[in-house]
Amino acid sequence: MGKKDKAKKVAPKVLKGFRDYPPEEEIARQILIEKARSVFERYGYLPLQTASLEFAESLLGPQYTSDNLKELFGFEGPENVEMALRYEFTLSLARYVAGNPHLPLPFRRYQYGNVWRVDKPGPGRFREFLQFDFDIVGTGSMLADAEIIAVMVDVLDYLGIKNFVVRYSNRKLINGLSSFARIPENKITDVFRVIDKLERQGREAVIMELGPGRTDQSGDKIPGLNLTDKQIGLLSEFLDMAMSPGDDALAGAVKLLGHIEISREGIDELKKIHKYILYMNVPADKAKIDVTIVRGLGYYTGPVYETTLIDLPEYGSVFSGGRYDNLVNRFSGKKIPATGSSFGVDRMLAALIALKAIQLKKSTADVLVTTMDKSHIDDYIKMAGEIRQAGFNTEIFHGETKNINKQLKYADRIGIPIAVIAGSNEFESGEVTVKDLRAGREKSKEVADREEWLEAEGIQKTIKRDELLSYLTRLLKKE
Amino acid sequence: MGKKDKAKKVAPKVLKGFRDYPPEEEIARQILIEKARSVFERYGYLPLQTASLEFAESLLGPQYTSDNLKELFGFEGPENVEMALRYEFTLSLARYVAGNPHLPLPFRRYQYGNVWRVDKPGPGRFREFLQFDFDIVGTGSMLADAEIIAVMVDVLDYLGIKNFVVRYSNRKLINGLSSFARIPENKITDVFRVIDKLERQGREAVIMELGPGRTDQSGDKIPGLNLTDKQIGLLSEFLDMAMSPGDDALAGAVKLLGHIEISREGIDELKKIHKYILYMNVPADKAKIDVTIVRGLGYYTGPVYETTLIDLPEYGSVFSGGRYDNLVNRFSGKKIPATGSSFGVDRMLAALIALKAIQLKKSTADVLVTTMDKSHIDDYIKMAGEIRQAGFNTEIFHGETKNINKQLKYADRIGIPIAVIAGSNEFESGEVTVKDLRAGREKSKEVADREEWLEAEGIQKTIKRDELLSYLTRLLKKE
Repeated sequence: MGKKDKAKKVAPKVLKGFRDYPPEEEIARQILIEKARSVFERYGYLPLQTASLEFAESLLGPQYTSDNLKELFGFEGPENVEMALRYEFTLSLARYVAGNPHLPLPFRRYQYGNVWRVDKPGPGRFREFLQFDFDIVGTGSMLADAEIIAVMVDVLDYLGIKNFVVRYSNRKLINGLSSFARIPENKITDVFRVIDKLERQGREAVIMELGPGRTDQSGDKIPGLNLTDKQIGLLSEFLDMAMSPGDDALAGAVKLLGHIEISREGIDELKKIHKYILYMNVPADKAKIDVTIVRGLGYYTGPVYETTLIDLPEYGSVFSGGRYDNLVNRFSGKKIPATGSSFGVDRMLAALIALKAIQLKKSTADVLVTTMDKSHIDDYIKMAGEIRQAGFNTEIFHGETKNINKQLKYADRIGIPIAVIAGSNEFESGEVTVKDLRAGREKSKEVADREEWLEAEGIQKTIKRDELLSYLTRLLKKE
Repeated sequence: MGKKDKAKKVAPKVLKGFRDYPPEEEIARQILIEKARSVFERYGYLPLQTASLEFAESLLGPQYTSDNLKELFGFEGPENVEMALRYEFTLSLARYVAGNPHLPLPFRRYQYGNVWRVDKPGPGRFREFLQFDFDIVGTGSMLADAEIIAVMVDVLDYLGIKNFVVRYSNRKLINGLSSFARIPENKITDVFRVIDKLERQGREAVIMELGPGRTDQSGDKIPGLNLTDKQIGLLSEFLDMAMSPGDDALAGAVKLLGHIEISREGIDELKKIHKYILYMNVPADKAKIDVTIVRGLGYYTGPVYETTLIDLPEYGSVFSGGRYDNLVNRFSGKKIPATGSSFGVDRMLAALIALKAIQLKKSTADVLVTTMDKSHIDDYIKMAGEIRQAGFNTEIFHGETKNINKQLKYADRIGIPIAVIAGSNEFESGEVTVKDLRAGREKSKEVADREEWLEAEGIQKTIKRDELLSYLTRLLKKE
């Protein structure tokens, strides 16, 4: 304490890829989270919170290396145990379900919280970010997948996004094809990863990566999967079919893949989902089958979902997921089917801001009680208490300054809409001045008879002290 | 995927000192957090979220060692930077304020989230836990300290705790005494730490630890501070004065310490706080001066606060804090005064449960629509949609079983109060059966005419399909 550490200051920095969320953004994040929660709970999803740190093998599998550990925020912790910060929730959910064998199934749960990834930071790319997942565990029914899609549509709708489409397909289509084309099992996940680039990189790049590889724009060599010409031929037929526009995507799939058992199973599942979401009153333009979608993640086994914001195509898929019937199996002998979807809160918030679907607020307070005459502090405190009692979030100015303009400037800077002002004159005459800071501050300077103008405009008004609460109620309900 | 990793399963374990929060607890935590948030916002506190990982020196100061790093969840992360998970929020707040020099002051903020500590885990002691802080930065006014106390009282009251008292004192009392007794500056923090044990360990143990040390019950040697007899004499006079019961604590302090300038400053501050909280209408039995309180933390500089739950003294202080005028200074040249308080969400929740001030709920869903006849799935889906539209959280049973008893058991186990049942008969006659699962399930077995009895008791009733929503509204409003 005190003198000694004055010598050496600590720089007030945040780590690379990390950030703070000031009130303006945090208020908006909380609104977004509460809206999403209310939709999930409307469908019976329950909140779960799992540990932020996990055993390294829970996240990386039993054969991980120290290099794998460095790809996460992984380290040797207390008792020399190797652990890492979670990079997603699905593995923790699978671990939770396996570790709680008496959990009533199906289990609908949602979870939100931070996840951590050692990605290269960049614009909008952080190493710590807030993720929101929801899943149904313990049923293989396509009803569950249809519900996931219906809830995704409801959430996006409730968040105020107008133009979007949830697109869905089924991994079994291409699984069947890969098996028909005799693509080795250890290459299948890579095939998904490459095909997942179709929308961003285009058909040509995908074909090259399935074959010998390619050189990207910055001159980096991207290795290929070295599939045979016949294998690539079959996959490219699939891509052409998938990319053909129109509602006959499923008809095309039947024609091309109907003879392959696994693919046909996937097509039948898509038909069921399509039927169920109609029952669920999901508008036809909000959820569409799109067989180009495979999702990059290795653990998906059936239906997969993505979301496109039509007015912000550059955001990519903001809400995505799929069915993963083998993941719980990693932690227990039992096969427990599951399906779900997730979104990144910050990217979703950025989208809402870009779409003007959310208004940023710098403050949650409605009223500032200014304190220009510190000898009346008891009156200010009582006034603030009354206004709070009337249901308004109310702050009392605690700074040292008596200067009323400085206090009003403070209110304006942190975005409090209303200021209440009283000095000796007002206290004597049983009055109080109320100032609406939301408008007209700049304009007012040009007006000659300022006080009169302010009053006429309803920007500043001196009223009877006992009318204060009713006046504030009128002012704040006006919005 | 698939066959290969069946060979080696990962045990579904959580790390030592970590835990998951199942829905029952997570629902309760969310309720608690929302209640606290609403009180903080009522007073104008704004949410802030800071990064979970910080530079090691931000948390430990510039001269930390690798052993210090091991006392936190600290490690060498990407780009070979030493970093650690935060173990509290106050340092991050100080870092944030120092890094944002244009922040309008005073800054009222609240923050909740996980913090991590490498403590020895034990009952109720975890290495990851949810902490809730609120602070005012940028004013040295005792108004701010009084508000912190008033808000603490409001929060505890709003959470439904009846018998509690927020006790407060001022570090300056004992600071002045220590300086008067010429206790070296590098021992003062230890003096606070030892005196902080007064309530738990008793007067005798404290005196021994100020002197030569002592041996505790388990035979461990606790080193002493080796103060001189004269120093210990002065401190023990203080302890005797502080422990003398009654409202004259302040009078005793004036008598003993009034001649020491720093102490007198502290006494004057306490008088101001006492006056302000009266203006704030804080009941006199809910906030009391108690000069035994010093708080163990080194960085407090003025008023300090603790909370005692009168019916649960074994919980210790559940809500505590103090003024720290030099902490921002660690990160910037500027001295920015600050004061605040915090509580651990899980300990507070445990207290609320022990006091029966909160009811645990296993589910947030109001209604389960059972699906006994899968050929009517479209009807079930539509029914669930209607009930949701009417404002009830509604889940549709997605499991494979058609067995109605298994479906009802599921609803009962996850705590859904109402089940809606319809089979072919009901669909034909335009009826639906509604079952209230909240009561009478066991008792019903003994009754001969079960159906009649269930109906008479209002536990199960078959009604017209078009009366469903109004009937559910009546049932669920009854609570």
